[in-house]
Amino acid sequence: MRGVGNWVCVVRRGLGRRVRYSPCRSPQYPTVLGPNFPDVWIPSTNTHRPQSSAIFPKGQTAAIIDGNFIAHDIKSRIADEIRRTKAVTGKCPGLAVVLVGKRRDSRTFINIKLKACEEVGIATLIAELPETCTESELLHVVSGFNEDTSVHGIIVQLPLPRHLDEEKVMTFVSPEKDVDGFHPLNMGNLAMRGREPLFVPCAPKGCLELLLRLGVEIIGKKSVVIGRSKMVGLPTSFLLQRHHATVTTVHAFTNNPEQITSKADIVVSDVGIPNMVRGNWLKPGAVVIDMGNNLVKDPSSRRGYRVTGDVCYEEAIKVVSAITPVPGGVGPVTISMLLSNTLDSAKRAFGFTS
Amino acid sequence: MRGVGNWVCVVRRGLGRRVRYSPCRSPQYPTVLGPNFPDVWIPSTNTHRPQSSAIFPKGQTAAIIDGNFIAHDIKSRIADEIRRTKAVTGKCPGLAVVLVGKRRDSRTFINIKLKACEEVGIATLIAELPETCTESELLHVVSGFNEDTSVHGIIVQLPLPRHLDEEKVMTFVSPEKDVDGFHPLNMGNLAMRGREPLFVPCAPKGCLELLLRLGVEIIGKKSVVIGRSKMVGLPTSFLLQRHHATVTTVHAFTNNPEQITSKADIVVSDVGIPNMVRGNWLKPGAVVIDMGNNLVKDPSSRRGYRVTGDVCYEEAIKVVSAITPVPGGVGPVTISMLLSNTLDSAKRAFGFTS
Repeated sequence: MRGVGNWVCVVRRGLGRRVRYSPCRSPQYPTVLGPNFPDVWIPSTNTHRPQSSAIFPKGQTAAIIDGNFIAHDIKSRIADEIRRTKAVTGKCPGLAVVLVGKRRDSRTFINIKLKACEEVGIATLIAELPETCTESELLHVVSGFNEDTSVHGIIVQLPLPRHLDEEKVMTFVSPEKDVDGFHPLNMGNLAMRGREPLFVPCAPKGCLELLLRLGVEIIGKKSVVIGRSKMVGLPTSFLLQRHHATVTTVHAFTNNPEQITSKADIVVSDVGIPNMVRGNWLKPGAVVIDMGNNLVKDPSSRRGYRVTGDVCYEEAIKVVSAITPVPGGVGPVTISMLLSNTLDSAKRAFGFTS
Repeated sequence: MRGVGNWVCVVRRGLGRRVRYSPCRSPQYPTVLGPNFPDVWIPSTNTHRPQSSAIFPKGQTAAIIDGNFIAHDIKSRIADEIRRTKAVTGKCPGLAVVLVGKRRDSRTFINIKLKACEEVGIATLIAELPETCTESELLHVVSGFNEDTSVHGIIVQLPLPRHLDEEKVMTFVSPEKDVDGFHPLNMGNLAMRGREPLFVPCAPKGCLELLLRLGVEIIGKKSVVIGRSKMVGLPTSFLLQRHHATVTTVHAFTNNPEQITSKADIVVSDVGIPNMVRGNWLKPGAVVIDMGNNLVKDPSSRRGYRVTGDVCYEEAIKVVSAITPVPGGVGPVTISMLLSNTLDSAKRAFGFTS
């Protein structure tokens, strides 16, 4: 992540013991976009590639990656950087949010994002449109934010009501303010190695941020992304490939997905089905990033439900070397990546590159 | 491929016996972009997915896919369609080619493309710039073609001399005339399922065209793309995934690539190394599309060299069920896809959609 400086990483191991990792990015690993190595095929048995040992030890209780701690660390650095940017330029980064309708989950997500912006000093603008608004009304609002020089990032909260063309609206957001990274121009530039997108989608960026902080060796590793959504699975596979992992994408049409995932060193899940990824789907010592965010009925909870991931956590922690919990794993880091994208965009707009 | 109607497919088997396949596309397989199935995860052992048997029989001599024949068939249909378009609209599709410098291979490729255009009735314009031209001179020429309403497709022949920024030039080509499909906006829309790019890169489009004509079942099949170039490997992996294959991309950092390729039902190679893919890299009955186009010294040849692919052909034909030869496989079909893209673009510009 640019502009946030160095960091340390704390993970919770097993039943809660915290373990501190030292910063582990080398100059070859400057950003989540990955090192720009040329594809030179070497016919030998790959002795030129460093092999990991410390990262994937067998038979240990999994390290539980503490996304809340990491997000707090990132946000703290972003807040510092925003203060510095304001002091030098006299200007404030701004994020505009468009919310259509009254979905409770959308409102919750928006509130989390707005609160995070407030914490780090990003100004926010909110446009709330009724469920029945027309596409042209929505595009008019987005157009206003596209033109507004005080706005450096625009989020259109998804999903939109069915009568609105989500693809069209997302493409209408200026690529220069597309802090969600969903515009096809940014997605194309992310897919094409050697190019640099203006924005990387937040959840995939968070996923790579976690892997890099953990010091997980990615180059040459068998990596499986389960799920291929445009917002999570697809761009995560691009990022892993930019880091020179050997990536397989597993989806609903894959036969016997567990045969593929159980050979992978890195497993990222973005399916939306609680407990789909069982312990026997995972290779001992693998690193698992659970991007699932599923609501499960839970009468014992005050709200009547709890949030869970795609991975059967209780089984997985007995098999893998590190795993993100849900909640408290990728989620908070994703929010901090939105702040990071907005800050980057503002600095570009201010011409403040130092 | 749109606008070209039905077809039949002829392949050469073993040492030259021709075998005719009937058309095999169902309405679910209308275009190379693939059917837009939703990702519905079914926890059973995938009994809902049809299994192939006829396509991957074991122990047979490979069918040799006759790209020249298929390209001829496609071109003939494109020529018919261009005649019809001209008759109705009074206008002619046009392709502009930009050539910088005097590379012999670039000149050869250009000549092949120009000849193909002439055969089907596409008008051509050529801009030749000296090796020493500046970037702004080159962009000025591209800009002229972007504005020229008689031009519906623009090719900037690659590679460009090193002092020119290839990425910048490719992005400068109007996405509406990007018949090579290399613009990041088109690439992003190709990567994102549910979206439709204006153009699909020609070699990957040709690869899928061949698989579809052969009647190869792609859904759920293990597919490996060897190589990840922006022009061939990457977009081929997108297309295979749009057809719901389980795609793994193998590259120079992959450990033991042969362990991965030898489990694949479909192998596409885009590496640029003669004979890299040996017979023992391939699963018996697999389908192999060899996108390699390598020059190898050959004193017995009139020119002193011969063209060969990435796959050790002599070994592969004893293992796989079907394979494209080099030359005479994907190459000619790629050229016909350029013609198809140019025709599609012209019809869009003419508003002639019937």
